[in-house]
Amino acid sequence: MPSRPNESSFEVNGRPYRCPARPIVAICLDGSADEYLDAALLRGRMPNLQRICLTGCRVLARAAMPTFTNVNNASIVTGVPPSVHGICGNYFFDDSTGREVMMNSADFLRASTIFPAAAAGRKVAVVTAKEKLRDIFARGLIEAGGIAFSSEKANAAQAKTHGIEGVEEIVGEPTPQIYSGDASIYVLKAGAALLRKGAADFFYLSTTDYIQHKCAPEEEEALAFYAGIDEQLGRFLEAGALIGITADHGMNAKQRPDGSPHVLYLESYLSEQFGAGFRVILPITDPYVAHHGALGSFAVIHAPAAVSLQAVRQALVELAGVTEVHSRDEAARKLQLPKDRLGDLVVCAARDLTLGRRPEYHDLAVLRGPLRSHGGRYEEMVPFILSEKLRPDYQQRLACDPRNFDLFDFLLNGVAV
Amino acid sequence: MPSRPNESSFEVNGRPYRCPARPIVAICLDGSADEYLDAALLRGRMPNLQRICLTGCRVLARAAMPTFTNVNNASIVTGVPPSVHGICGNYFFDDSTGREVMMNSADFLRASTIFPAAAAGRKVAVVTAKEKLRDIFARGLIEAGGIAFSSEKANAAQAKTHGIEGVEEIVGEPTPQIYSGDASIYVLKAGAALLRKGAADFFYLSTTDYIQHKCAPEEEEALAFYAGIDEQLGRFLEAGALIGITADHGMNAKQRPDGSPHVLYLESYLSEQFGAGFRVILPITDPYVAHHGALGSFAVIHAPAAVSLQAVRQALVELAGVTEVHSRDEAARKLQLPKDRLGDLVVCAARDLTLGRRPEYHDLAVLRGPLRSHGGRYEEMVPFILSEKLRPDYQQRLACDPRNFDLFDFLLNGVAV
Repeated sequence: MPSRPNESSFEVNGRPYRCPARPIVAICLDGSADEYLDAALLRGRMPNLQRICLTGCRVLARAAMPTFTNVNNASIVTGVPPSVHGICGNYFFDDSTGREVMMNSADFLRASTIFPAAAAGRKVAVVTAKEKLRDIFARGLIEAGGIAFSSEKANAAQAKTHGIEGVEEIVGEPTPQIYSGDASIYVLKAGAALLRKGAADFFYLSTTDYIQHKCAPEEEEALAFYAGIDEQLGRFLEAGALIGITADHGMNAKQRPDGSPHVLYLESYLSEQFGAGFRVILPITDPYVAHHGALGSFAVIHAPAAVSLQAVRQALVELAGVTEVHSRDEAARKLQLPKDRLGDLVVCAARDLTLGRRPEYHDLAVLRGPLRSHGGRYEEMVPFILSEKLRPDYQQRLACDPRNFDLFDFLLNGVAV
Repeated sequence: MPSRPNESSFEVNGRPYRCPARPIVAICLDGSADEYLDAALLRGRMPNLQRICLTGCRVLARAAMPTFTNVNNASIVTGVPPSVHGICGNYFFDDSTGREVMMNSADFLRASTIFPAAAAGRKVAVVTAKEKLRDIFARGLIEAGGIAFSSEKANAAQAKTHGIEGVEEIVGEPTPQIYSGDASIYVLKAGAALLRKGAADFFYLSTTDYIQHKCAPEEEEALAFYAGIDEQLGRFLEAGALIGITADHGMNAKQRPDGSPHVLYLESYLSEQFGAGFRVILPITDPYVAHHGALGSFAVIHAPAAVSLQAVRQALVELAGVTEVHSRDEAARKLQLPKDRLGDLVVCAARDLTLGRRPEYHDLAVLRGPLRSHGGRYEEMVPFILSEKLRPDYQQRLACDPRNFDLFDFLLNGVAV
């Protein structure tokens, strides 16, 4: 039986945190549009989540734009928007060097995560599904005595580099395939096992959206997935944990009525209209292409110097399915993005549309099922669930446009204990 | 026991409809953000809705912008967007006459409702909560043998003008107060009574959002309201009706963390910045001010001729809480609005913010509770629920950005019968 955790206080990125003397479990359910929870709850497949919502609170919160995984996980673990932490996608084009740069390491993170500070008083464990996220968020945590590993590489965890080893033995299951729902369930199983063992008492558990890219909410595979998540929530409840759940982004079908992928190839279009020299950055692009074929609902445009940005903006606005076009300055201000990692224009697409570069950049054959994706405004609202009632001031704030990256603030400071 | 209704076919505004030989009940639950249904379902307060969702389907659909009652009811009953039907709010400023014009009669509707055509083969009844909606949608229906009345003036219905009289006797209850949840429940009770009596077999039932402006989803008054709605859904299910449910718009708290109303006074601001002569139209304004104090998240700006629209646009974009600013042309295209009933610029506000004219135009003392309102992009996604499974082609369309104004199309043409 693990001992009672310590109460502790710390401050990160200007936010003070007071950590109650209870196990803390913060969960980011990747790609979990509220409809997934609704479909499972409606069918009685998430009894523990139902209990959590009734004992605590459930609202919708606004994610950070663009609605991508790294952007929002970075926001949640730092408590600040992308304009501050700097992660605005999986990659960007660096005008000064003329190179496309993958933001796949902590070097690109301009704000500290809350983990090293939390680890001063608590046993912190960060478990992600994808290794790429672990790489970004582990910085400083292992040195501070914490644990950080991914289910994707659970069997590669070493005490020196991950703060733990023998993960497969602790969890009681082998390392899962990354293209599976199990890769996510494993994240929660690992958290529950570490909590039971007393190896950690302060968790950030971040899943992957393989299931959500593949399945609509009411499909049995999705329902079974959420039932699996729910089983682990039950283990955290049994252990007396304070639980906070949110998502990095929602998920929508991006299809034509015949079921084919719905894509607007921006680089092709702009080149036809204005000539060569356009570079369209799709910040969803990552090595896990089977999820989405690098197609999302957000794009950054770098235009050749000779072309009128006003004319390009106007042409983009007139395209059916383009919902927003922002200049660099407007995007930095309105979408809270880091100005130096943007392009000349930022484009968002409709609920049912993705933005592509040129057809030859996108291998649609890799898609496992119909195209479902995210990145734009229609994947912005996400669940925000806390397992206990809030203090009156935080209860009031819950009605004032809460953000998904307020999760640790609400969980540590807001719960009436 | 009513006789079995006729099968019938008709076409309205370019859409063909085939009406199955069953009672048809289309319901617009005013202001019903999905969170209201979630909160009630989670607590077991809507067992009939749960049954409907499990037997049929439940998704989110996109409402028409601006997310106001008349705009979306007009869209639902015509099957076309505001750019076609012309109703873009409760009122507009007519540049040609220099007058603010209330759009409170069918004269402003540029497309036919589906009701007169449906009434050729079916016994059609339109029941609204507010009299203002009845006035707009009754045109041609009474002459075609249909019924149209409001719960607000149930006791004033006459055979000649409303197609029915003695409503209070039929429903078994007196005319409710308009500022009440009962005004909405009465709409459904009247529908169920007319169906049972055999007086109608094709319904459009449209409620009012008094409760949603007043209460957050988890408040007991809201839960009890939805339990009351659910009871009537049960009566339609018992009668073997095909049921379709959507909403005209969602609802969000528009408050500061201290609970006070969150308002940006645009006319004051623009006058300070650019001088006199601005006219800000708030199309939410109607005689029922206790709901919202004429404060919503959408405004239309008429600027004096001497001022640079580009400069005004830029100033508006830079305001915190302003999420979108469109020129007249852009708004007409991107928001599907009638160009001749817009102004120079159209402005949308954030999830937690409303747009006002000047403080003296808004009597915040009339608000019954904290400010909750709608009108912008954050009230755009609404429930879309059908009581039976769809044909494969409509099932596929359900994944392709369905609109709330596709309700009759899905209900009449989409259900697998």
